[in-house]
Order: sequence, then structure tokens, then C-alpha cells
Amino acid sequence: MSRYSDLLKKINQKSANVCVVGLGYIGLPTALYYASRGLIVHGLDTNEVIIDELREGIIRARERGLVELAENYLSKINLETSYSEVESAEVYVLCLPSPIDKNKRVVTRYLEDSVTKLSETLRKGALILVESTVPVGTTERLAELFGEKGGLKLDKDYWFAHSPERVLPGKVLDELGTNHRLVGGVSERSTELATAFLSSVFEPNNVHPTTARIAEAAKLAENAYRDVNVAYANELARICSVVGIDVNEVIKLANLHPRVKILQPGIGVGGYCLPKDGWLLVESVRDGSFEPRVIPAAREINDSMPAHVFDRIRQINHEILSLKRVVGVLGLSFKPNISDTRNSPSVELIRLLIDAGIDVVVYDPYVDRDFGARRAESLDDLLNICEVVVIGAGHDVIIEQLRESDLDEKVVIDPNNVIPDIQGRVKLYLGISN
Amino acid sequence: MSRYSDLLKKINQKSANVCVVGLGYIGLPTALYYASRGLIVHGLDTNEVIIDELREGIIRARERGLVELAENYLSKINLETSYSEVESAEVYVLCLPSPIDKNKRVVTRYLEDSVTKLSETLRKGALILVESTVPVGTTERLAELFGEKGGLKLDKDYWFAHSPERVLPGKVLDELGTNHRLVGGVSERSTELATAFLSSVFEPNNVHPTTARIAEAAKLAENAYRDVNVAYANELARICSVVGIDVNEVIKLANLHPRVKILQPGIGVGGYCLPKDGWLLVESVRDGSFEPRVIPAAREINDSMPAHVFDRIRQINHEILSLKRVVGVLGLSFKPNISDTRNSPSVELIRLLIDAGIDVVVYDPYVDRDFGARRAESLDDLLNICEVVVIGAGHDVIIEQLRESDLDEKVVIDPNNVIPDIQGRVKLYLGISN
Repeated sequence: MSRYSDLLKKINQKSANVCVVGLGYIGLPTALYYASRGLIVHGLDTNEVIIDELREGIIRARERGLVELAENYLSKINLETSYSEVESAEVYVLCLPSPIDKNKRVVTRYLEDSVTKLSETLRKGALILVESTVPVGTTERLAELFGEKGGLKLDKDYWFAHSPERVLPGKVLDELGTNHRLVGGVSERSTELATAFLSSVFEPNNVHPTTARIAEAAKLAENAYRDVNVAYANELARICSVVGIDVNEVIKLANLHPRVKILQPGIGVGGYCLPKDGWLLVESVRDGSFEPRVIPAAREINDSMPAHVFDRIRQINHEILSLKRVVGVLGLSFKPNISDTRNSPSVELIRLLIDAGIDVVVYDPYVDRDFGARRAESLDDLLNICEVVVIGAGHDVIIEQLRESDLDEKVVIDPNNVIPDIQGRVKLYLGISN
Repeated sequence: MSRYSDLLKKINQKSANVCVVGLGYIGLPTALYYASRGLIVHGLDTNEVIIDELREGIIRARERGLVELAENYLSKINLETSYSEVESAEVYVLCLPSPIDKNKRVVTRYLEDSVTKLSETLRKGALILVESTVPVGTTERLAELFGEKGGLKLDKDYWFAHSPERVLPGKVLDELGTNHRLVGGVSERSTELATAFLSSVFEPNNVHPTTARIAEAAKLAENAYRDVNVAYANELARICSVVGIDVNEVIKLANLHPRVKILQPGIGVGGYCLPKDGWLLVESVRDGSFEPRVIPAAREINDSMPAHVFDRIRQINHEILSLKRVVGVLGLSFKPNISDTRNSPSVELIRLLIDAGIDVVVYDPYVDRDFGARRAESLDDLLNICEVVVIGAGHDVIIEQLRESDLDEKVVIDPNNVIPDIQGRVKLYLGISN
């Protein structure tokens, strides 16, 4: 029991060496946040480019407050690229990617590789905390792998737990400090140590101990819930599109009901989490006796939305524009006011348009990529070239500028319903359904 | 325009003759409520048994406050069984059933028959208001049918609108007076007249004018939203059941997230509306270019839940009870504290148990039917016979009595999680997943 008591004491005194493994979208803010809370923090990323940039103070992710936090705390973090440099740490926090492959199966090899390397280097008596979102049962499997590879005994030589990050891109730092944290160990002792660790960083009342499986399931359930509800709104939009009514009006009226709160339909669901977490939940029972229906249906509908918007554009092109095939897309990120374009439905729409031979011009003040389209230098430039304008991500700065622009001759397609009041000031306004 | 002005004036003065067609679950409370608001009300039902009973003051539906309302206002309603007796009415409110058939297709013939009969008898200058829930486009089709059959012109000889009822069984009278009402005509004049009519009965700020199609879609969207969200909770329960964790714990933790509100899983979805309204929404585009996925998947999952509970019972029967095949089911209605057993998942469970040769005993103080099972006279009687007890609808009176009963030797199956605190006081407690 002495290793357990030693580690618990160090954790409570904030004297344990903590190593955040993976310094990406979640890992870097997490490491900085831990440092700001007075922990001794190491940051490990085997990608040398990331570490070199961080050593030069370059922050790629656009997160509100991140640059300021880095100015104050990046210098306090020991940045490393090799596992052998962090073998003295006592708490390892794994913030590694767990994406899906083309067959919608989770890729856990980043976690498996990390756990294998850790088992070879770390000293006895460490806590490993997986923050990556994973299918139910994965943390237990990783803990076993770790013990086998290193010849180590759970609850004696190491403890292993899962505490899923639950933050919203664009609000990572706000939410890191205030959101509730779930923490579930693969053993009771693991849960206790991981709870003590998180309680030393976050408000203890916001730290909720449970089991690894329940923590895994709860995180996946959150994101699949959002995905299913967006999918329902999108399915409703598709139905309204067929019967020729405005889904936004339908939702506004339906939501007058005290027990109804339908979300906003739109161009589709993007980002790192929502397009995959439903599949991770499905994969949790892929060898089981039950075949989920609702979650896969939701994924299918949400994935189909860029193609629906594309069909609407093609239709106008045929009906009223005939040969004028220049389409502008404004806002490329997967949601407004951020730079993150991972799995962005706007990018998928651009791909569909280009594949159909349509000349596409894009503009996004936060995104410096073109995704194979022509890139306008300003919104005015784009408006000068394009008669058809699609609002992908409705950044506030784009909406403000659109309101001040002359759009008399424009066909504006606004799948996310971000600027419905523009109707009457444009040649044609098209929402997602009407 | 004079017929329009005449009718508008009468509506505003509450001097129009109003006929509620169909005096069932919705029609009777509606007619009584209108009478209580000072309208001149006729009640038409071609089912003579219903009218005879009402004439004798017999109220079958158990709705809080209904008996009291009937004591005061039933005598003020002119009850009729024939369309020829109500030909002088100026506003017809259709509260007729719109069920689905075995192929999940809506049955609109009750509405079509009524509209046809009305077209033969009613005088020119009437407003017809459909309250029945119908697929998008149905009100327009009924209006056309009415005009054709009667040789009448819309906006000149008649007006036609849809105003879906939105009340919750068990709370019909509470909600009739306070819920928002949508009202959509098949023409602008129809919307105006129907809005005036409903504003003469309900708080005018709660009456929301729109089009017939949007009103139809909004009502269906409300119920499909509930159905999809219950289905998501149920799918989650099924997943948790496979991986061996308690879904209620998962949901409690997931719902700590500020943007997540997962509903309660359970034995399934019943009642008159939720099991069919999703299909009505799907049918709205059945000949269209889009095939809904989420709503049918939700229906499938919710319909499968009684079979899931059945599988759990059969498993215990095999595992620990072997030959003792007496199962008690408590609470037969589709939700707690009401008598309504329409599409009740508890009744479906009873059917599955009986079909499998299991001896079933039922008890429900609000329901006097047995559904092919043996009926216990009291909860104690049932507990004397059954070792396995399933709580279907968790009526408050049943829960209270269970808390006071000796359950040491009982296997209690509580799919709706209505009495989780009973764990430890029973031989075995089984929820929906753990």
C-alpha cells in the first residue's frame, strides 16, 4: 500500500510530476491549465515540429485565452519529445487522438503505442489517466495491455483511469475550469487516485467518481445525444424541403410546446468529436447482441447534409443561372467564430462543388487554406466575383459585413439560418428547406 | 365577402353555433371546455353508445377535472348522432381519430367520411377546423374534397383550417387552457377566421397563425421529437445492457453537461400519439425524394423495448427460477397514474409472456381489463402468487404500496427506474440495463 499512499500524498500536496502526453487541441490547453494551477507539468509530444514550435512560443490553435495562458505558463512546462525524458513522472495524462477510420472503426493505436512505451519506461507507482474519448471497455483493455507489457500489477505497481475531456472547441479554456469532470478507474484505488488528482486541479464538487466503463459511456452518450438531436432537426429540414415549407418556422412553432426543444438544422455536423463519437458508442457493442439503429441513422443524415445543400445550389444553377457557374462559400470552419476546419461540412460542400466542375471561390478570415478552391482576399472580392453565395460557418464578422454589403443581385444560400433578415434585400434567399 | 364578415362577427360575439365532431379523448374535453367559455356547443358522435352514455352523464375517460367540468357543462351541449341534426352550425371542429394501419400508413377515412357528410348537409358560410393530427398536406386535401363533394368554393362558401391539439393525456384540461395553439388555414381568410375562433376561446397571445402545412408539420415534429429522444435513451439502455453497466448512472453523469438532457429509458413508448405521429411525419414525404432514417429507427427501437424486457425476464427465469413461471405485471397503462392502455408497452409485454407459455398475473387499480392474464384483486394478492414482479406503469399508489410490502423473496424488474431505492430489500432487482 505504500506506493498508493506515497502517490496520494504527492497528489494532494501538488508535488507529483505530471506529464501530459499529446499536446494537440486538448493536450496543450490542459497542460497549460494544470501549470496555471500550480502543478509540476511535463509536456510530451513525439511530433518534433509541435515541440519545436512550442519552444519558440508558437501557438497554432485559436482558442480564446490560449495565447495569454501560454505567455504566462508555457515556460513552466518541460517540453519533451521522448518517453525516456519523462520517465520520472508519477501521473500521466493521455490526450492522444482516437479517430475513426474509413470503416467508422476507432483507431486506438496512438493510445496503445503510448501505453506500450510508458510500460517500458515509467517507474513503478504511477497513475495513468486517459482523457481521449474511447469506446466502452477500452480503458480496461489499455490497462491490461500496460500491465502485461511492463510486467506490472494493477493496484500495486500502477493505477489506470479514464476522465474524458468534455470541452467545446472555441471555449476550451472557459470550460476546462467550470465543466463537471467524470473520472472512472479500472479499480477502486485507481478511481480514488484519479479523483484526488483532478480534485487538486478542479473544483472538487465538480469531480464525479464512477467506473471506467460508465465514464466512457457517459462521454460518448453526451456527444451522440447532440448528434442525434441535430440529425432530427436535419431530417425535419429534409422533410420540409420536400413539402415546400420553412423548417425554421416549423421548429419555432413546435418549440412553443413546453416539452419540446428542437435544435437548429443546417449544413451538417463537423469538428473532431461529433462525427465520430456516435460510431465509438456503436463500436462499444459491435460484437454484442444488439444493433444500434438511431445513432447510425443520425450519422447518415448529418453526413448527407452538405450533399443536400449542394443539390439546392445545383438546382438554382440549372433553373435560373444556367451557365454562370461561380459559387462563393463564406466561412469554412465547422462552426462559427473558430478556425477549426476538421470534418467541416463547408469543406465537404466545396469538394462536391469542385467535383461537379463548378468554379468555387472561398473566403474565411480565420482560415488560410483554400481546399482546392480559389481564395478571395476579402468578402468584397468574393462578392465581386460570385453571384451565388453560400454561408457556411456564420462568423459574426462575416454576418456584420454582409449586412452592410449590396446584395441586390445575389443569390444567398443560408443553410444555418444565420441571416434570415436579409430576405427582401437579395435576388433570392434560400434556407435549408424553403 | 358578406359570408366572411357575418361569420367573423358571430365568432367575435361568441354567437356562432359550434359543433364538435367526435366526442372521444380529445373531443369531449374540447366540447366541454368550449361550453365553459360561453360558446354555443353541439356535440356530434355517430357512435350511439357514446351519445347515450353522455346523455346519462357517464364519462368513461379518466381525466383530472373532467367529471367536474361535465357536471357543470354537459347539459349545455346539444348531443347528436346524425349530421343532419347539426347542419345549422357555423364552425365545425373535427376531433376524429387518425390512426395508423398495420403498414404504418395513416387512416384518414374517418376524416374523409366526416368531410363528405358535412359537404352534403352544412349550410354555406361555415368554418371547418381539423384538430386531428394528420400528415403534412392532408388538410389541403380534405378541403379540396369538401369543396368538390359539396360543389362549394373556398373563401366564398367555406373556410378550412388545421389546429392540432397538443395536450398530454392525464392533463388534458390543464393543458387545453394554457398550451399554445397553432392554427393554419388552407387560405389566408381561413387562417383569419380560425384564429378569431380560437382567440375567442383561448388567450389570444397563445394562438399562433400560420399555414395548414406548417401547423401539421409542427405538431408532428413535436411528437416525433419526443419519440426520437426516448428512443435515443432506450438505445443507450440497450448498449449499456450489452456492456453491463447501469444506463441510469450513465445518463445522470452525461446530463451534468450543460448542453445535454437525455430522457429516461424504459419499457417502451405507448399511448395514442407517439407511436404513430412519427410515421405520419414520414408519410408526409412517402412519395417524395427523401427517405427519413432517424424517425423510423426511433420507432423501431421504441417498439422493441417490451421484447427486451421480456428477454430479461426469460433470462432470469432460466437462470435462477427455472420452473417457477409466474410473472406479475403491475400497472398496465402506457404511463403512470392514468387508465389509458392504448398501445401500452406493458400490455405488449403481457402478450409476449403469455405467448411464451408463462403464467401472468396482472394488477392495476385504474384498469379493469386483464389482456388474457389472470387478474389479481389487490397488490398483496399478486405478491402472494408471483415471485417475479414487473413494474409496468409506476402509478404512485403502486409505488407507495410496494415500499410498504415485504419483498425479501421477490425478483423485481423495474424497467422505468421508478423505485431504484428498493434495491437491497429484494432478492434481485433488475433495471432496464444492469
